[in-house]
Amino acid sequence: MAKYFAFNAQHAIDYIKNLVKEEGYDFFQPDQTLTAYEFGDGNLNLVFRISDEQNNSVILKQALPYARCVGESWPLTLDRARIEAEVLVNHGAICPEHTANVLHYNPVSALTILEDLGHLQILRTAQINAEHFPLLGQHVARYLSYTGFYNSDFYLAAQDKKAKVTQFTNPELCQITEDLFFNDILREHERNNYPAQLQSTVSKLQSNAALHLAIAKLKAQFLSCPQTLLHGDMHSGSIFADQSTTKIIDPEFGFFGPIGFDIGSFIGNLLLNYCAQNARISEFVIRRNYHSHLLTCLQESYSLFEQQWLALIVKQSTDLNLQANGYAEHFMQQVLQDAIGYCGVELIRRTIGLAHVADIDGIEDEQARLDVQRHTLALGEQLVLNAHTCNNKEEFFSLLISQLN
Amino acid sequence: MAKYFAFNAQHAIDYIKNLVKEEGYDFFQPDQTLTAYEFGDGNLNLVFRISDEQNNSVILKQALPYARCVGESWPLTLDRARIEAEVLVNHGAICPEHTANVLHYNPVSALTILEDLGHLQILRTAQINAEHFPLLGQHVARYLSYTGFYNSDFYLAAQDKKAKVTQFTNPELCQITEDLFFNDILREHERNNYPAQLQSTVSKLQSNAALHLAIAKLKAQFLSCPQTLLHGDMHSGSIFADQSTTKIIDPEFGFFGPIGFDIGSFIGNLLLNYCAQNARISEFVIRRNYHSHLLTCLQESYSLFEQQWLALIVKQSTDLNLQANGYAEHFMQQVLQDAIGYCGVELIRRTIGLAHVADIDGIEDEQARLDVQRHTLALGEQLVLNAHTCNNKEEFFSLLISQLN
Repeated sequence: MAKYFAFNAQHAIDYIKNLVKEEGYDFFQPDQTLTAYEFGDGNLNLVFRISDEQNNSVILKQALPYARCVGESWPLTLDRARIEAEVLVNHGAICPEHTANVLHYNPVSALTILEDLGHLQILRTAQINAEHFPLLGQHVARYLSYTGFYNSDFYLAAQDKKAKVTQFTNPELCQITEDLFFNDILREHERNNYPAQLQSTVSKLQSNAALHLAIAKLKAQFLSCPQTLLHGDMHSGSIFADQSTTKIIDPEFGFFGPIGFDIGSFIGNLLLNYCAQNARISEFVIRRNYHSHLLTCLQESYSLFEQQWLALIVKQSTDLNLQANGYAEHFMQQVLQDAIGYCGVELIRRTIGLAHVADIDGIEDEQARLDVQRHTLALGEQLVLNAHTCNNKEEFFSLLISQLN
Repeated sequence: MAKYFAFNAQHAIDYIKNLVKEEGYDFFQPDQTLTAYEFGDGNLNLVFRISDEQNNSVILKQALPYARCVGESWPLTLDRARIEAEVLVNHGAICPEHTANVLHYNPVSALTILEDLGHLQILRTAQINAEHFPLLGQHVARYLSYTGFYNSDFYLAAQDKKAKVTQFTNPELCQITEDLFFNDILREHERNNYPAQLQSTVSKLQSNAALHLAIAKLKAQFLSCPQTLLHGDMHSGSIFADQSTTKIIDPEFGFFGPIGFDIGSFIGNLLLNYCAQNARISEFVIRRNYHSHLLTCLQESYSLFEQQWLALIVKQSTDLNLQANGYAEHFMQQVLQDAIGYCGVELIRRTIGLAHVADIDGIEDEQARLDVQRHTLALGEQLVLNAHTCNNKEEFFSLLISQLN
């Protein structure tokens, strides 16, 4: 069997041509001239677009054996390509309308061929430009509730669930989250990244004992609570969208973890954009409208997520114990509180940790950028600290609005 | 490689002789005449004692590919022999003084050779005879706290922990617990086993919605809370003891689960014996003394278990997040509430489910036996329902005493 090597554009073309010619794939007609270029802006992978003369195209994504943003000094398992492909296949079987379609996967070369979603926009870029996506909340709610429920103890037979937990054990990529998301942000760490002007704010945050305690609980859940097969990296850069379509990509951080993690991350990214728009949109009415759009999206996504989860539990649960009266409501209250907590941590870690968001870092005016960063830090802290006081989503929305005004 | 077949006594002797002669094991001198007999009273395995002329002896335990108590119609994975041997090796490395010593393991034949603990008594038999074991609580506390802590997120690096969770994934045996412990007892089921005189009591218990809800939470934790490597079947038949020694055997149900499960099961078995003694010891003073001995053992085991856990968290934790002020206390409060809940379920399921205890079933007087069964059912129900009200172990002990008098 061929050994792994990192592809260039010609390798990508040759590989695809061979699949079409020898393996019966029909991405392209056999006699087409193909062109390819690499355009990955991620940190861990090569991404090629391969097109024919009629502008048919596919994406070839290949994992590198190290973290590209840091260099070869940070080795990283190629098994993440398997995880990514298998999460997409799992989620795609449950929710094809919002999952990027896997056309081919090769474990030795750690590469996946995917449908080209280039006609859509990366959500982060579009939201930085204050574009409206009226169906986004609804689509994300559907994706997360359906993929969540059908991989949970409510639905899967216990033995099947255990096999899937093993299949999607993802130690190296989970370690990145365990470090960057929970650990680094609470102490001085060389991987942290924030301007000197924030030092006093950060020091105060890092000395808050209640915050340490709340984040300990969230970390413990992240480590030992395999409730469902998560996407694992559900930020605005993992979503392609237009007015009518939403497609989720890049679940290489996928693993069985707490249900609140993905929806919390998604909402956290909406809030990062919300705060950033205070510095980006100068005109009051336009800003107010966009803020209102983001809040509607947030509330819609959480409300529908919860509503669909509850409906699926009633209609589709197989575990008799978990059908006990009141259990679904108890369970979803825990999910809500977890989601608020993870959302808060996302706000903090995207502000002071290693991995930032362009929504904020791209703000040119330094003072305005610092104001946004202070806001996301304070908001994140309040969400983490008060998550356990929210007994229902209305209390969460009230808490949120009190912190946004 | 040889194929699996079920051993008889001669096979056991031949196997051991070969190990001594060809593989360098020194259980016996090479020229000894060995004798063997099968004496397993378990449901799932063959157990042989092999002795030489000087009365040196070892135990050879072989898993059968079906549940022996039911017959070949209930197939059961031989992988449980691997789980059992590997749990014993793991726990034995941490707490050799209370873990049966594995001398040899053969995965193909699904057999393990163990130190012979025949000089000790099975705790269940001894407690039925009202024997005192002054060090039992202390020893069990040490075994459960040390093996628990060193396999937990507090101590293990996250990647090592994930590898161990996979190593000890035990779907088939967990399924037995999931069915017998949580599911069957809450509904009419052919596997349930109780006298007709208990029907109205059982029906009332099975129609208690609050009990269904509390057990749903315990089941969910059992399914998706891999906190540590549990023994998984920590009843009085899995413990060998005398006045100075306590050794744990038979962890074939071992898996990563909620920390409260093992200690709850152990305490539940002390309470089953406590209730049974009301019908077994007729003389008041002797009964009162034995009850007092059992309660002391129970309180000592839980107190030391918690105390050693807390001390280990302070001194040996490696995860920085989980060292947050107050987290250990929060965590141990959850463990306490889980333990009380699992203890309560153990009382119920050993009274009306498939697997009973000889402490109760051996009571000859039918009316006295029924009284004990009503007591264990009521006690179990109250413990499950009130577990969440116990903020500390003193409140648990008070709750318990109020239900025992």
